[in-house]
Amino acid sequence: MALEQVLVAGGWRDAKAKSTFHAEDPTTGETLEGVFPISEWHDCDDALNAAVTVAGELRTAPAERLADFLDLFAKKIEENMTALVSKANAETGLAAVPRLRDVELPRTTTQLRQGAAAAREGSWTQAVIDTMANIRSHYAPIGPVVVFGPNNFPFAFNGISGGDLTAAIATGNPVIAKANPLHPGTSKLLAECAVAALAEAGLPPSTLQMIYRTSKEDGLRLVSDPRIGAVSFTGSREAGLRLKAAAESAGKPIYLEMSSLNPVILLPGALRERGQQLATELADSCLAASGQFCTSPNLILMIAGDEAERLAADLAAILDQRPPAPLLSAGSLKGLDENVHALIASGATVVTGAEPIVGCGCRYKNTLLRATATQFLANPEGLQREAFGNATMVVTAQDIDQLRQVIGALEGNLTGSIYSSKAGDDDTVYVEIASELRFKVGRLLNDKMPTGVALSPAMNHGGPYPATGHPGFTAVGIPASLLRFGALHCYDNVRPDRLPAVLQNKSPNPAMWRRIDGNWTRG
Amino acid sequence: MALEQVLVAGGWRDAKAKSTFHAEDPTTGETLEGVFPISEWHDCDDALNAAVTVAGELRTAPAERLADFLDLFAKKIEENMTALVSKANAETGLAAVPRLRDVELPRTTTQLRQGAAAAREGSWTQAVIDTMANIRSHYAPIGPVVVFGPNNFPFAFNGISGGDLTAAIATGNPVIAKANPLHPGTSKLLAECAVAALAEAGLPPSTLQMIYRTSKEDGLRLVSDPRIGAVSFTGSREAGLRLKAAAESAGKPIYLEMSSLNPVILLPGALRERGQQLATELADSCLAASGQFCTSPNLILMIAGDEAERLAADLAAILDQRPPAPLLSAGSLKGLDENVHALIASGATVVTGAEPIVGCGCRYKNTLLRATATQFLANPEGLQREAFGNATMVVTAQDIDQLRQVIGALEGNLTGSIYSSKAGDDDTVYVEIASELRFKVGRLLNDKMPTGVALSPAMNHGGPYPATGHPGFTAVGIPASLLRFGALHCYDNVRPDRLPAVLQNKSPNPAMWRRIDGNWTRG
Repeated sequence: MALEQVLVAGGWRDAKAKSTFHAEDPTTGETLEGVFPISEWHDCDDALNAAVTVAGELRTAPAERLADFLDLFAKKIEENMTALVSKANAETGLAAVPRLRDVELPRTTTQLRQGAAAAREGSWTQAVIDTMANIRSHYAPIGPVVVFGPNNFPFAFNGISGGDLTAAIATGNPVIAKANPLHPGTSKLLAECAVAALAEAGLPPSTLQMIYRTSKEDGLRLVSDPRIGAVSFTGSREAGLRLKAAAESAGKPIYLEMSSLNPVILLPGALRERGQQLATELADSCLAASGQFCTSPNLILMIAGDEAERLAADLAAILDQRPPAPLLSAGSLKGLDENVHALIASGATVVTGAEPIVGCGCRYKNTLLRATATQFLANPEGLQREAFGNATMVVTAQDIDQLRQVIGALEGNLTGSIYSSKAGDDDTVYVEIASELRFKVGRLLNDKMPTGVALSPAMNHGGPYPATGHPGFTAVGIPASLLRFGALHCYDNVRPDRLPAVLQNKSPNPAMWRRIDGNWTRG
Repeated sequence: MALEQVLVAGGWRDAKAKSTFHAEDPTTGETLEGVFPISEWHDCDDALNAAVTVAGELRTAPAERLADFLDLFAKKIEENMTALVSKANAETGLAAVPRLRDVELPRTTTQLRQGAAAAREGSWTQAVIDTMANIRSHYAPIGPVVVFGPNNFPFAFNGISGGDLTAAIATGNPVIAKANPLHPGTSKLLAECAVAALAEAGLPPSTLQMIYRTSKEDGLRLVSDPRIGAVSFTGSREAGLRLKAAAESAGKPIYLEMSSLNPVILLPGALRERGQQLATELADSCLAASGQFCTSPNLILMIAGDEAERLAADLAAILDQRPPAPLLSAGSLKGLDENVHALIASGATVVTGAEPIVGCGCRYKNTLLRATATQFLANPEGLQREAFGNATMVVTAQDIDQLRQVIGALEGNLTGSIYSSKAGDDDTVYVEIASELRFKVGRLLNDKMPTGVALSPAMNHGGPYPATGHPGFTAVGIPASLLRFGALHCYDNVRPDRLPAVLQNKSPNPAMWRRIDGNWTRG
C-alpha cells in the first residue's frame, strides 16, 4: 500500500521517512487502512522554512481573507461530515452519534466561525492609542505556531482543525500541525478540507502544514527551533513537560494543557438535599467520552457520614450498571490500568472496577476508588495522579477543616466544582472552601459538572501549573484564546500613514473596539 | 558597625547571614557606610511563608486600600526626596540633578500613582461577562511575586519601589524584593517609606518584604519555590537566563528584561537632510546615564557613503568632547571594557575610546566602534554583544539589501528606530526596512531615539527573546504591565452573591470598563 503524503511546503508531497505507522480500531484492535510516515527532520526543516516565508506574507494579508478561510474551512468540514465522522469513529472508538456528528463536529465549525468573526472584528488585537504622546500598541502575529493535538478530540482539538489552529490563524500566523498518531486518517481528511479552503480563500498554501509523526528527538528540536514563534500542546503531562523544557530553553512561548483532576466537592447540605441526583450527575460526567475529557472529574470530595456513604454506593451502582465505552487506544487502556493501580498502591481501595474487560477491544470496567482525606494528606502526590479514562475516586474528610486541607494540598487544576444546598445550609462553609479552591483552579463552578466547556468569550480553559504552563492564558474562549499567539507591538512617534490601519486615528472597521486615551470605543 | 536588618515576615529583623557586603561610591571607589547581610535560605524561607499568608489576606482586601498604599508610598518618597537622592547618588554615581531628583524620582512616584489609579478603576482585570451562559472571568492575583531590580534605576526599577512592585501590588499580590547589591542603602530608605505607607494604609506588614542579597543558589531556589506566583527580573542576560531556567522548571512564570542593542537606522535621505543634527541626537541618547539604559542605542546602521562617514566623524567628535560620566560600579566598568574588547576581537575597529580612564573612579572613555555589514553578517553573534555603558557601534551596509540582511540577522530587541527623510525621499526604502525590523522589536520608533520610555498606557517596554522572555508582555505602561501578575479566573454558573463584586451584574464601580456580551461598557 502506498505511503500517505505529508502536507509540507505548499502541498501534499512524499515524506522523507525511514519508518511508518498505522491507525487501529480500538474497539476491535484491527489495523485500519492507510500507512503513514514517521517523518525525519528533513520534513520539519522544510516545513519551518516554508512557515517563515509564509509568515511574512500573512502579516500583510487582510484579516478578511483569514476570516474567509476559517469560514470556508468550517463549510468544507460540514460538507465532508459523513466521511469525517466515519473515519474518526473508526480511529477513536468515540460514538459517531451523538458525540462526533452532533457535538464535536459542530463545536469545531463553531470555533472556526467564531475565529473568523474575531479576525474580522479585530477587537482581539486590543489596540491602545495614546493620542497625546502619539504612542500606539496592539497585538500582532507572534510567528509560526506548532500545534500538537491530543488523542481525545479528533476534530475540536486536532492540530489541523481545532481551537489552537483557529486561534493561530485568526491572529495571522501560519501553523505546522503535528497530527496525533492515533487518528492520522481523520487528520488527513481535515487537512484536505483545509487545503481546499486555503485555495478558495486565496491564502498561500503553506499557511497550513501537517506532519503525522516524528521521533521524540525531532519533536523537541521542532519546538526549540529559532524559526518558530510559539507552540501549543494538549496531551499528557510527561510529554508536555518534555516539550516545555525544550521550547523554553530556546525562549519560545509554549502553551500547554497537561493534566487535571477537576475536583468536585459535594457539601453536606447538597448531599442531604439531592444526593441521589448528584450520583447520577457525577456518573454522567465521569463516563462522558469514557472519562477521556481534560475536565473529567477524577476526584470527588465529601465530608464522611451516612450521606457520603450513600452517594458512594449510588455512584458505584450506576457505574456497575452502565456499559463501559471503548477507550481511545490500547495505550489508553494500558495507561488507565497503570494509573488506577498506582493509586491503589498509594492506598486507594477499590469500590468497583479497576480491571480491563478481556476480549472486548480497549475497554475498562467503570471504576470507583476510595481514600480518606487522612490518607490523601499523607501522600498527596501519590493520590492525585490522573487516571485518564472511566475511573474516579471518592475522598472523604472528617470535617470541613480537613476538607480545606485536602484542597490546600491540590496541585493546579483546570476546574473545581462546588455543589451546595439550594436552601443555603452550606453558605458559611462555601465561603471557606471556595476561597481555598479559587486559587487552585482556572474555572470555578457551582452546582455544575466541569465536563461542558462552553465556547464562551468568558470561558477559561486553563489554570495554574501543572494543569497548564501559565495561569494567564486560556485554550478555549474567543477572543481570549487568541492572545496566546500575539506579540505586543508598539509604535512610538511613527508617521500616520505608516501605522497599521487598526492604529490609525480613523478606525478601518466600525465594529472594532479600541482603547483610545483610556476609553474603549468603536465606530 | 551593626549589620543592617532585613524586611522579613512583618518587619525589620536581624538577618540570618554568615557573610556581609557593603556599597561603594563608584566615582571614588570608597566604601560607603552600612554593612548589609548576605541572607541564608532561612530568611527566604521565612519570607515565603509570610508571603503565602499575606497573599490570602490581600485577596479579600479592597482595591481601594492597595491604591491608598501606592499613593501614600509615593508621598513618602517625595517627603524623603533629599535623603533618597543623596544616597542613590552616592551608591550609583548617577547625577543627583537632574537625573535622580527631577527625572527618576518623579517617574517612580508617577508609576506608583498610576498603579493606584489602575487598582481603583479596576479595568485592568478585564472583566468579561457572558450573561446568557452565566460564565464570567477576569484577571485575579497570581500569588507572591519575587522582584529582582537592576543596578541602573535605583528608584524607578528598584524591586521595592519600581514598576514591577507597583504592578504586583496593584494586582493584589505581595512582593518579596531582592534589592540590587549595588544600592542597598537606597533600597533600605525606600523600604522604610514603604513600611510607613503600609501601616498608614492598613495593609498587612508582610505585603512587602526585602532581602538584600543571597547566594546564587538560594536565588535560584527562591524563584523555583512552590510558594511563589511569579518572578520579575531586570538585569544581565547571563543572570536572567539562569533564573529563567530555574523558575520555568518549576512551572513559575518569569518576566525578564535582559539585553537589547536597540538598533537605530539612519536612512540616506535623513542623513542628507540633517546628518549633523542626528549626530548630536545620537550622542545625547548614547551618553544618557552614561549609556546605562536598557534602551541605549548600541548599534547604528547606515548605508556606506560620504554622509555615513560624516555622521561617524561628527559622532566621534562629540563623544570626544563630552566628559565621560561615571559608570554604576567597578563591575560595570570591567564588564563594559570586556564587552568592548570582545567586539573588537570579533572584528570591530575602534574609532575612539575603548579604554578605562585611569585614576578617575569608574569611568570609561566615550567609545565608538565600527564594523561593516559584511563583517556583521559573517559573525552576527560576536558583533551583537551588548556593551552596557557609554559605547556604541556604527555598522555600514553596502546597500539597502545588505542593510535588510543585517536587520534579519538581529536577535530580539526592545526597540528599533528608523530615521527617514522628512521630504519623503526614503519612503520606499522605509517600507522594506520597517517590515523587516517590526518583528524583531517590541517598540518601533520614527525619527526618535529609544531612550525615553514614556509612562503611557500604549507603551511596550518588552520585545522578542532574548530581549525578554515573552513577546506578549510589557514591563512599563499601566494597565498593560499589570497583566504579568494576573491569573485568569473563570466563574461558571456561580451564584450571583458569591461572585467577586467586579463580575456581578451591577458594576461596583462606574469607572471600571467591563466587556459584557461582547461590548465594552462602564457606568
